[in-house]
Amino acid sequence: VVENTPETPRTEEEQAPQAEDLLGLSPEVVRRIADALDAGDAAVVDKAIEDLHYAEFANLIEQLSDEQRDRLIDRMRPRFDPDVLPELDDSVRNEVVERLGTATVARAIAGMDSDDALYVIDRLDEPLQRDILAAIPKALRDMHEEHVAFPEDSAGRLMQRDFVAVPTFWTVGQTIEFMRETSALPYEFYVIFVVDPRHRPVGTVSLSRVLRHRRPIQISTLMEQNPITVPATMDQEEVAYIFRQQDLVSAPVVDAGGRLIGVITIDDVVDVIDEEAGEDLLNLGGVREDDLYSTVVETIRTRFPWLSINLCSAFLSAFVISLFEGTIAKIVVLAALMPIVASMGGNAGVQSVTVTVRALAMKELTFANARRNLSKAIVVGVLNGLIFATVIGSVAWAWSGRFDVGLVIASAVVGTLIFATVLGTAIPILLTRLGADPAVASGPTLTTMTDSIAFLTFLGLATLFLL
Amino acid sequence: VVENTPETPRTEEEQAPQAEDLLGLSPEVVRRIADALDAGDAAVVDKAIEDLHYAEFANLIEQLSDEQRDRLIDRMRPRFDPDVLPELDDSVRNEVVERLGTATVARAIAGMDSDDALYVIDRLDEPLQRDILAAIPKALRDMHEEHVAFPEDSAGRLMQRDFVAVPTFWTVGQTIEFMRETSALPYEFYVIFVVDPRHRPVGTVSLSRVLRHRRPIQISTLMEQNPITVPATMDQEEVAYIFRQQDLVSAPVVDAGGRLIGVITIDDVVDVIDEEAGEDLLNLGGVREDDLYSTVVETIRTRFPWLSINLCSAFLSAFVISLFEGTIAKIVVLAALMPIVASMGGNAGVQSVTVTVRALAMKELTFANARRNLSKAIVVGVLNGLIFATVIGSVAWAWSGRFDVGLVIASAVVGTLIFATVLGTAIPILLTRLGADPAVASGPTLTTMTDSIAFLTFLGLATLFLL
Repeated sequence: VVENTPETPRTEEEQAPQAEDLLGLSPEVVRRIADALDAGDAAVVDKAIEDLHYAEFANLIEQLSDEQRDRLIDRMRPRFDPDVLPELDDSVRNEVVERLGTATVARAIAGMDSDDALYVIDRLDEPLQRDILAAIPKALRDMHEEHVAFPEDSAGRLMQRDFVAVPTFWTVGQTIEFMRETSALPYEFYVIFVVDPRHRPVGTVSLSRVLRHRRPIQISTLMEQNPITVPATMDQEEVAYIFRQQDLVSAPVVDAGGRLIGVITIDDVVDVIDEEAGEDLLNLGGVREDDLYSTVVETIRTRFPWLSINLCSAFLSAFVISLFEGTIAKIVVLAALMPIVASMGGNAGVQSVTVTVRALAMKELTFANARRNLSKAIVVGVLNGLIFATVIGSVAWAWSGRFDVGLVIASAVVGTLIFATVLGTAIPILLTRLGADPAVASGPTLTTMTDSIAFLTFLGLATLFLL
Repeated sequence: VVENTPETPRTEEEQAPQAEDLLGLSPEVVRRIADALDAGDAAVVDKAIEDLHYAEFANLIEQLSDEQRDRLIDRMRPRFDPDVLPELDDSVRNEVVERLGTATVARAIAGMDSDDALYVIDRLDEPLQRDILAAIPKALRDMHEEHVAFPEDSAGRLMQRDFVAVPTFWTVGQTIEFMRETSALPYEFYVIFVVDPRHRPVGTVSLSRVLRHRRPIQISTLMEQNPITVPATMDQEEVAYIFRQQDLVSAPVVDAGGRLIGVITIDDVVDVIDEEAGEDLLNLGGVREDDLYSTVVETIRTRFPWLSINLCSAFLSAFVISLFEGTIAKIVVLAALMPIVASMGGNAGVQSVTVTVRALAMKELTFANARRNLSKAIVVGVLNGLIFATVIGSVAWAWSGRFDVGLVIASAVVGTLIFATVLGTAIPILLTRLGADPAVASGPTLTTMTDSIAFLTFLGLATLFLL
């Protein structure tokens, strides 16, 4: 008896709830709004967008064509929701800001939380940024100046400047009264920092702990001591690593003197994780940045460097092959077989690069275990090489009718796969040691080497043993 | 006068604080412990590990060799910190659990937070999992049974079952008293849920809002109404998307009847984002999963499918080339030039696939804007094609001394680059529509096509016009 088999089988796809259904911005809704914008049907547009969350509205703007976007912005200008701006993709944001106009945007930015305002200003293109900076209140302009004094992508730029810090001798009751009476608190927060007289953080107390204890209890008895503090100059990728590693929800940011100057919370870190993971993925794929919303010219520019490097590497391969033109002219089947060796080598190399880059980003791979991973790469390369060499050698033998051709290609496959697997592991590790970003530079370095080596090995062996 | 130029220039690398320095598990520390384990120097080992955070200890275990790991575990068994287990990589965890023994592990799991315990049990290999399930308390075993009733990677498996829910008519004072008097609360939490008499969530109140208001105020006046609820069957990737999209810190999980059964907080979502981004990266690189800590045999198994598919695609290319052996035999320089066309096509295709897969994962690309992106892909393909065709054609002309060879390769480059760019955009979109994971299947599908098309176009044109 087979149980658990419903009569009408349903696929997981049909059953699983999708985020779009919940959020109300399905492709159908987007298409309806786009059509209404094309038709100039203002009533339909207004009705469709009235219930959208600001993040959905940002998503909608991104998905529209340039003309539709401009029409929508013109329509929304008088009641534009400032919260939309931080949610937009960088290149779309620049267009939206330009269309909205300096006055509207400056007003919107002045009304935002300071960290959102700085984030938006930070990411505007040069002439726009200057215009906006000139139009916002002086207080915010000064804050921006302090902000850009921190290195790009540093904890100092990521942190919020509003936080609750209390002295060690306060009680739960005093702390609660302080929070009830102070208006300049962040909108939401999860921990309170306890600081010494020199304003250095000595402990953190989660709000749930404050709430669960009686008023006379001293705050310092509830706190987690010696919190991990983040220097303001630390790179955001390192900050994200610490949050993940230590399961943190928030962390105090300190200046060079160890004084508390801000707080980073996990929701800021989510964006960083997202960004960094996306960057690694795009860089490994040979793209400098997400160019989905970029213009054609920008897209070509972001993809150009990788293609150029690849072209040089392809010319090098062509040069290697040309050295053996005599051999190919005599045994033409080599021309058909040689891409097999290069292609297998390239793919085995990319696999190793991918695993190594990810492991380096996760700090699972360090110099402490690099040697062991290289040894493993050699074994994997040898075994994979032997397996695929047998298959490829047999097929080449059957195809060409020459056993020696099969033997030559099999040997070339073993050599190339070992080489590619080891190099794919070693290159990212070496690049990291040299201070380069392994996700950016590993791919080009690897491809240049594996292709040439594959052709050199195969055609070299062929010249030695087949002529 | 040049200002801001310090006398001894320092690179960013030297200045930027690194997470390892802060956390105290530098490669040097790992190496020192590894050496001490090899030498059997127990005192050094004990001293070095005594201050490690559980996450650092997990990291240390991962970086050791098998023999070192076993020695360390044997030494730590009597005082093993259960919190280490959830932090370990899956394949390392299985080894550690096996070495620790069922009794020790069952005791450790029984002492964990329920969500951590379920997470660990969930990820054990089959025979181990059965042993552990038999050895843990019945209450936890029952909880595990409920847990696995939810689909894999669903919100129901991700959620915590402990949360604070209060009725709408309670006041701030009542809520605070309740939290002070109830011991069975989660260790840390950020929001309180407000539920109706049928236990359906009607609002959320952040702890900071509770703390900032006077005791007689009714909770329902402080709450954010109509919170976004997550169905327990929703896939965790969708959950992560909603959190990012709506900037959520926590969300109530509801059953089919809309009743509150758990809560997902942003720290759970961080792990999901991390996992999903890593999966996409690895899959695009042709690896099924992170195999850094896998044995050699497992590593070969995770890399085998991609290499096999690639082999079939390489054989197809070889077959295409073999159709033109006559042409190559007459103009041998074609053999040297043809990999250039294939390589440029492959890389342009991978760039498009990468951008498209990322955009699909971020839901920036949907069917609503798919057509516009395909049009852009055509334009990018044409322009990139023309640029690189000019360079490649000129070099080929100079090299071979034949203008017609330059013209043929230039035409082939334009055709292949358009084809690859469009296909690299279309394949992931189509795979998504068909319900397949674009990160897994796009690469193989693309490579198979671009290589063959490149050789076919180039050698076909050569046969037509050069002979």
